[in-house]
Parts: sequence; structure tokens; C-alpha cells
Amino acid sequence: MASQSQRARQRAVVRSLRGLAEKVYEHLEHGRIPEMSIPLRTKSNIRLNARTGVWTYGKAKGTRSAKTLKGAKMLLRTLYVLDFIRDMIQEGKSSTLRELYYISEGWEYAGFSTQDESNLLAEDLEILTGSLREDFRLRPEEDGARVMGNLTVEELNRRGEPKRFNCRDDVGDSGYGIPHNVEAEKLKLIDCDADFALAIETGGMFDRLVENRFDEDMRALLVHIKGQPARATRRFLKRLNEELGLDVLTFVDGDPWSFRIFASIAYGAIKTAHISEYLATPTASFLGITASDILNYDLPAADLTPQDAKALRDIQSDPRFGDRFWRDEVELMLEVGKKAEQQALAKYGLDYVTDVYLPEKIAQLGLG
Amino acid sequence: MASQSQRARQRAVVRSLRGLAEKVYEHLEHGRIPEMSIPLRTKSNIRLNARTGVWTYGKAKGTRSAKTLKGAKMLLRTLYVLDFIRDMIQEGKSSTLRELYYISEGWEYAGFSTQDESNLLAEDLEILTGSLREDFRLRPEEDGARVMGNLTVEELNRRGEPKRFNCRDDVGDSGYGIPHNVEAEKLKLIDCDADFALAIETGGMFDRLVENRFDEDMRALLVHIKGQPARATRRFLKRLNEELGLDVLTFVDGDPWSFRIFASIAYGAIKTAHISEYLATPTASFLGITASDILNYDLPAADLTPQDAKALRDIQSDPRFGDRFWRDEVELMLEVGKKAEQQALAKYGLDYVTDVYLPEKIAQLGLG
Repeated sequence: MASQSQRARQRAVVRSLRGLAEKVYEHLEHGRIPEMSIPLRTKSNIRLNARTGVWTYGKAKGTRSAKTLKGAKMLLRTLYVLDFIRDMIQEGKSSTLRELYYISEGWEYAGFSTQDESNLLAEDLEILTGSLREDFRLRPEEDGARVMGNLTVEELNRRGEPKRFNCRDDVGDSGYGIPHNVEAEKLKLIDCDADFALAIETGGMFDRLVENRFDEDMRALLVHIKGQPARATRRFLKRLNEELGLDVLTFVDGDPWSFRIFASIAYGAIKTAHISEYLATPTASFLGITASDILNYDLPAADLTPQDAKALRDIQSDPRFGDRFWRDEVELMLEVGKKAEQQALAKYGLDYVTDVYLPEKIAQLGLG
Repeated sequence: MASQSQRARQRAVVRSLRGLAEKVYEHLEHGRIPEMSIPLRTKSNIRLNARTGVWTYGKAKGTRSAKTLKGAKMLLRTLYVLDFIRDMIQEGKSSTLRELYYISEGWEYAGFSTQDESNLLAEDLEILTGSLREDFRLRPEEDGARVMGNLTVEELNRRGEPKRFNCRDDVGDSGYGIPHNVEAEKLKLIDCDADFALAIETGGMFDRLVENRFDEDMRALLVHIKGQPARATRRFLKRLNEELGLDVLTFVDGDPWSFRIFASIAYGAIKTAHISEYLATPTASFLGITASDILNYDLPAADLTPQDAKALRDIQSDPRFGDRFWRDEVELMLEVGKKAEQQALAKYGLDYVTDVYLPEKIAQLGLG
């Protein structure tokens, strides 16, 4: 049921994977020890791309060589994985990263010791081929987002039939669950009548806004990102922004871990900086909970743990958080020594968040 | 938009809550120190109800008295919570348990110190009134199940409009997401053409069975229970079994934590034994992964940690696991010292689970 453009893209992916195998073969044929070189994926090696506004890897590289037993195993695994991906593409299958890890149990000497190893290899292959893990038909365990609001999508289902859903009228109260592949071949964004998208960290808050009909009253598209958002969720937000021109506002807890959730949406994650252009929404705004909110709204707050304080200090040296807003907010949070959850707004009753807090904050961002 | 029976039920709930407040008032009026007595919720105080086949609390009781400052605070909180629930019922709202915890920040001396306290109180109120937390309009954060298969449901959405969905034809590949309230007033089970329901622990395995179209090929209703299932999910499985006559098969990881997931589905959880009749499906079968499967299918397995071994020994003294099947399987797992995940079946390729493992195991259960 693959379309022509999809088939062309698949052929290109298989070609680039084959290219990697050929390099190893050439090294061996010329009596050289095979090796692969890939960019270092560390905080010190990410740079702001001024044109696209996202953070990507710099020029520092590392080399994996078959000189050592460990390196040789790594190259053998790589070849096995290339083979597995080619088979999946040919058979129209996909697999979880966990399944890939277990599949390697059948590779005798080349099995992965931990899933971290196979996950990293999948990311390395993305960098080396310029393709996406989604092109390799590999996906994480994580659930994708739930969506509520006046957006119409067309999903090509597993039978290859296009199905249209309005994410407000054709779904139950739990909303529309995005599939794990949200590429245009799988999911088309047909039509949307909303002023902005609100990315919401917790299910409790998403359900609160659904129950209070915030999507209808404020012409909002509600997206439950389920904590640290899956790649499919970040890609979905990016497409809402890019294709439909929706502003993306991020509404998360007020603590360093949630600041990182925002960073992964807006700037891209350090681990996946090679695909930031594809996943990040540089114009996304941080709506709250801010350290200032804790003071201004007198929110129930918990003391920062030593881990929280350390994470905040890490943020202070993270180039993605270099602007004035973040410098001030992180400093303030360290100063007051408090963090707060988005549901803490319930202190003032169940409607406060939709009647007072969100309208005020949205107006402050100049969108109200 | 509440129906007449719904309104009658709501009035009954408000009446029973009022009854609790009246008792405290009476105690005070007669110059007695107010107190409440509730069943002890411990492993030693659960008993098998021979008629219903589920485990419920025995006769052991504890007393909360205003004799101490702690007890007095507890009673004050209880009265505040009764008030809050009555307001929600009157306004047609609902709230998360987390929101209830934060709401208590407004109660000056009576605020809860931790959410555990407010959760426990909500359960105590269920026991004292014979009502359900759902009647109190309180719900957890957890996501409900995703469903894929030939089941048609009618959900009364937040606007009070009935909406019909076929959980195979009217949904995307992520399936139908059940709402957090699955009572008959909210969700009607209209029609089902399936031979059994398969409760699946991990999202990766659910997606595997969806991709492999196991629901179509084996006439199965697939239910992703998302690890330890939310109450709404257990209630949903119970209703599939009771109203539609579907056998419920449980397909989880092979380790003590997943055995407990099965127990909570089949026998009810210790913490919520007061509502086992409402949540538990006593005829549910454990399909796998068993300790025997690890040996018979030569599955990739990890060593039991000391915590795993301790949990298995706890299971040996848990009355819910008293039958021969469980005694043998738990003993075998301790003997081989191994545990395995359901995705470990990928060792034999992505189709092995649907082509070989599940048909074999289902035939063993006499359902094939």
C-alpha cells in the first residue's frame, strides 16, 4: 500500500544503509582495519544553527575501529542491524527498539549486552545515513500524544486505508491518540480551526482542560505530551507549527526536569541533536509553571532536592538556556529554593487554571 | 445531562456522605469524642468470598478517634473532603486525586501532608459508604486502556452527546482510548464480535499484535493495560467478561511484578479489596510469560534480583496465589532464578508471537 514517493524514500534508505556495509567491505578488501567515524554527542559538541534556530552537532568526531574486540563486535552488530532493517522495509514491518535488542539474541557473538547499546546504534545510523529512525522502521515503547481540539487529520491505517478524524468531534473524551509514525505518508493534517497548540505535561491537567472545555472556549488545540515527549509527539508539534502555523505553548510543571521537557520541544535534545531540525519547534514558548508563578500566584510548592538544585545548575551551563528569560527564572528558582506542579493551581479551585491562570499567561505572551 | 438513574445514584452518594458527617455531629452533641471505625486493609485481613470468587476484607477493624491531635485532624479533613465531593457532584465536575491533595492547601489546619494521605482517605470513604471513588468524582492520573478489535461502544461525551465507535473501524492504529470513567452511564458496550479479550502489559507488544493484525486473524479484542492497570481498565475488563461473556486472557512479562498485575485483574488488589467484586475478573486466565515458558521456549532471560526473589517469596505467602498452578510456577521461577519480558519472544523474529507462541498457549488453555 506504499505510495510511489514512499517507495522512492525507502529505496534511498536501503541504498544509504548498503553504502555503510560497502565501506566496511572496501576496508577489508584493501587490507585495512574497518572503522566508522561519527560526531561526538555531548553537550560541549552542540552548536546553534543560526539559519534554522535549532541546536545541532559541531565538528568533533569519534572513531569506532575493529582494532579492538569491542570495536569489531560493534561493527558486526552494525551489519546485522543493517540487514534487519532492510528486511523490515521489504516486508512492510516495523519493530520497537526493545524488539531489536531481543532480535540480536539470535546473532550469536554480536548480541547487544544492554538496550542502551542498540538504541545508541540506531541513533548512530541516523547520523551516518542522514535518515531517520522512523525510516528504519524502529520505534520506542513510549506512547504518543493524545489530542483534543478542532483539528482534522487523515491517518493511513494498518490496512492502508485513509481514515479521517476530527480530534474533537470524532473521538471520545480521551482524545485522538497519534500513531507512533506521524510522517506525512502516515498522517496528513487536513484542517485546523484553533489559535494555538497547548502542549501539556500531565494527564491530570489535560483532562482538567478537556473537562473545562478550554479547547472550545479559548480556540486551543490541547496536546497531552505525557511527560518527556516521545519523538512522534515532538514531530507532531513541529508539524502543527510548520504546516498549520500554530503557535506552540508549553504548559509543564515548574521544576528543572520540566524545563528540560520544554528544551527538548523548542531546541531539540542533546542526544538527538542530529535531527533537531526535524523535531524541534524553535518558536515554542514556555508558558509555565515559572519560578515567578510560584511567587506571583502563591502556589503550594515543595523544597528543591539536592538533585533538583544540581539539575538547575546544569541548566545554567547548558547553551540552550542561554537567554535572559531562562537565566532569570533559573536563578530565581535557586534563590527561592522551591518547585511547583501544574496541578498546584487547584489550590484556588478546579476552574482557576482555565478562568484565571491560563488567560493571564497567554495574554502576557501577546497571544490572548 | 445526567440521566434519571444517574441523578438517583448521585443523591444516594450525597446522602451516605452526609450520614458520615452526621455521626461526627452526634458524637459531639452527646459530649463524646468523635471517632470512625474502618476495616484494616492488610494482607492478613483479606478473605476469599466463595460466592463471588473474589478476595474481600475480613472483620478486623481499626479506629480513628479525635482523642489525639492527629486523629482530630484526620476527622476534620474527612469533613472537608465530604464537602468538596458534594460540591463536585452538584456542579457536574470531577477531579484527580492530585488536585484533591492540592485543594486541601486551602483548608488551613487540615491540609494533607502527602498525597498518600488523601488517596487513603478517598478509599476509606469508599469502604465507609459502600460507594465508589468514581461516584465521588475522584480519579487517578493514570491513563486508561487502549483497545483494538471488533467492539462497538457508545460513549457519552463531555457535552452529554452519545457517540458510537467501533474499536477497529472508527479509530487510528493507536486504538480507542477508554475514558477515565467507564461506568454504564458513561460508556455502553453495544456489540462485540470477538472470541476473547487479551490484556497486554506493554505498549510494544500491543502495537506488535496490532501490526500483525492478531485481532482480525484470531478474533481477539486487544486491550493495552499499560503496566499495572488503572481502575478504569480493570473495570472495563470486568465488564467485557460479565456483560459480553468474553474470556479475559492476561499476557504480561514473566516476573513477580507482572504476576501481581494478573492478580489485581483476577483477584483484586489488597489495597482495594473492598471493591474487588466490582473490579476483579475471577475467571481471567494467566496466559504468560510463565517460568515454564522461559524454559520451553528458551527465552532470553535476566537473572532475578534480590528484590525479585523477595517478591516471589511474598507471593508464596499471598492467599491469592494459593492454587497448584501458581505454587508450581513461582517455585520453578525461584529454582531457575530467571525472569523474561514478553518482547523476549522477538528472539525468533517479529511474527513468532502471533504465528507460534500465542496460538499454542491459547490452545493449551482450551480456547484455540
